[in-house]
Amino acid sequence: MIRVAICAPSTPFAREDAARVLALAAEVPGVELHFHEQSFAVDGHFAGSDAVRLAAFLECANDPAFDAVWFARGGYGANRIAQDAVARLDHVAGRKAWLGYSDGGYLLAALYRARIGRPVHAPMPTDIRRAGGEDAVRRSLGWLAGDRSGEEPTLDGRHPAVAFNLTTLAMLGGTPLMPGLAGHVVMVEEVSEYLYAVDRLFFHASAHLGGIAGLKLGRVSEVPDNDRPFGADAGEIARFWCARHDIPFLGQADIGHDAANRIVPFGLASAGRDS
Amino acid sequence: MIRVAICAPSTPFAREDAARVLALAAEVPGVELHFHEQSFAVDGHFAGSDAVRLAAFLECANDPAFDAVWFARGGYGANRIAQDAVARLDHVAGRKAWLGYSDGGYLLAALYRARIGRPVHAPMPTDIRRAGGEDAVRRSLGWLAGDRSGEEPTLDGRHPAVAFNLTTLAMLGGTPLMPGLAGHVVMVEEVSEYLYAVDRLFFHASAHLGGIAGLKLGRVSEVPDNDRPFGADAGEIARFWCARHDIPFLGQADIGHDAANRIVPFGLASAGRDS
Repeated sequence: MIRVAICAPSTPFAREDAARVLALAAEVPGVELHFHEQSFAVDGHFAGSDAVRLAAFLECANDPAFDAVWFARGGYGANRIAQDAVARLDHVAGRKAWLGYSDGGYLLAALYRARIGRPVHAPMPTDIRRAGGEDAVRRSLGWLAGDRSGEEPTLDGRHPAVAFNLTTLAMLGGTPLMPGLAGHVVMVEEVSEYLYAVDRLFFHASAHLGGIAGLKLGRVSEVPDNDRPFGADAGEIARFWCARHDIPFLGQADIGHDAANRIVPFGLASAGRDS
Repeated sequence: MIRVAICAPSTPFAREDAARVLALAAEVPGVELHFHEQSFAVDGHFAGSDAVRLAAFLECANDPAFDAVWFARGGYGANRIAQDAVARLDHVAGRKAWLGYSDGGYLLAALYRARIGRPVHAPMPTDIRRAGGEDAVRRSLGWLAGDRSGEEPTLDGRHPAVAFNLTTLAMLGGTPLMPGLAGHVVMVEEVSEYLYAVDRLFFHASAHLGGIAGLKLGRVSEVPDNDRPFGADAGEIARFWCARHDIPFLGQADIGHDAANRIVPFGLASAGRDS
């Protein structure tokens, strides 16, 4: 049995959504979910104060009864606790998988930098709210149960990979949370940003990606209309900044803020995947 | 006579606004404005392609007939040409003042890093469109004519200062445009960002400001309503991240995306100001 603790390092989750996720999990043999009560806490923007969110994450991470910690939802806020969180993990945390994406990327990054357990870009409980979101949630549940078919299909098992929301990766650069990514395939995706802002984020993020094996572009979705067209699409923007920094552009990645978002275990994907 | 070349390193300016600015300038003895034709060029989001904007900036900067270069407008785009621009300046550029703010901050930063002339955070021709904007434009025209009364009132002539839009400063960190700011008073302002995004920008920018003399907060204006309150105002956010990085928080700065935006010459303000 894989026992999974769920907490909310960023923004609050809803009890009715938790019930739906628990019902889905009941159909997956070998996986047992435990929502930490903090998942439902509210303090202004956040799922509880920094202290409350940090304490809940540490309770989940340092409890030997759990094999994995799943972030309920992104939003914003994991960056405020990630450095303290990593500093206070004990040895049992090193055996765990950490699942999430979007704002959860700050924690995934910090854990990967510290080489603690297995950070995994993966759909979150909050994806249950999307059209088709049950498939997204089942993808993570399946992965936790040992099914690798939900992994991003271009993972080759030879190049270590990471996946981030572009804003999250841009904000990580130069901070104490940023892992070294030399030799890595770096996948990025974005949602709800103007294309000029995507260009600006690439300007910044690409300056922090020297030495990577290459960049793959996930979906850039829900781009708002601006008062005039930007003049280049997201793929052209990615190619432009990769060329500026001599970063190989490696094509598309099957990730995004959507129900089709695939799973990217940080580092080398396990051998013998069946995808 | 101070001769000022105006170009648009980011987004296009309008001819009717240029006419209004020229009319204002006619009332200021000792200042003569020359709009480069590129100021009115349009190419998608930008005031001409990167090559067109770069060429116009270089024509203004490397022409010995001009004493200053004034950026017509921000928006987005100066970051795409700033590195090439600085690399291609000749010796006459070193005698000039460079005026602008917002997206123009990328060029101000790159010029300050390269110690070429005098970068100045100052109202731009585009401010003519604001309510009260004539005062903002007159403030820069007056400064060009030698009147220092429009400078930011807390400049003390002892600590070197810079002023940036917070997003611009955050995006500069770790890039080849970022100047060393050790010992500087760093002033920041922001517009049209959610408070959670302001918090995220401070998380990032403050990680790149080690060794500064301190931070001053300008106006954080036109904050959109979010679905729930953030739980802290901009001043509390600034104090939080300054405390996290042991950066002295030095109070308010009289800058912002508004008609009252005051002038901040980068480095040490001139002695004997009459403000």
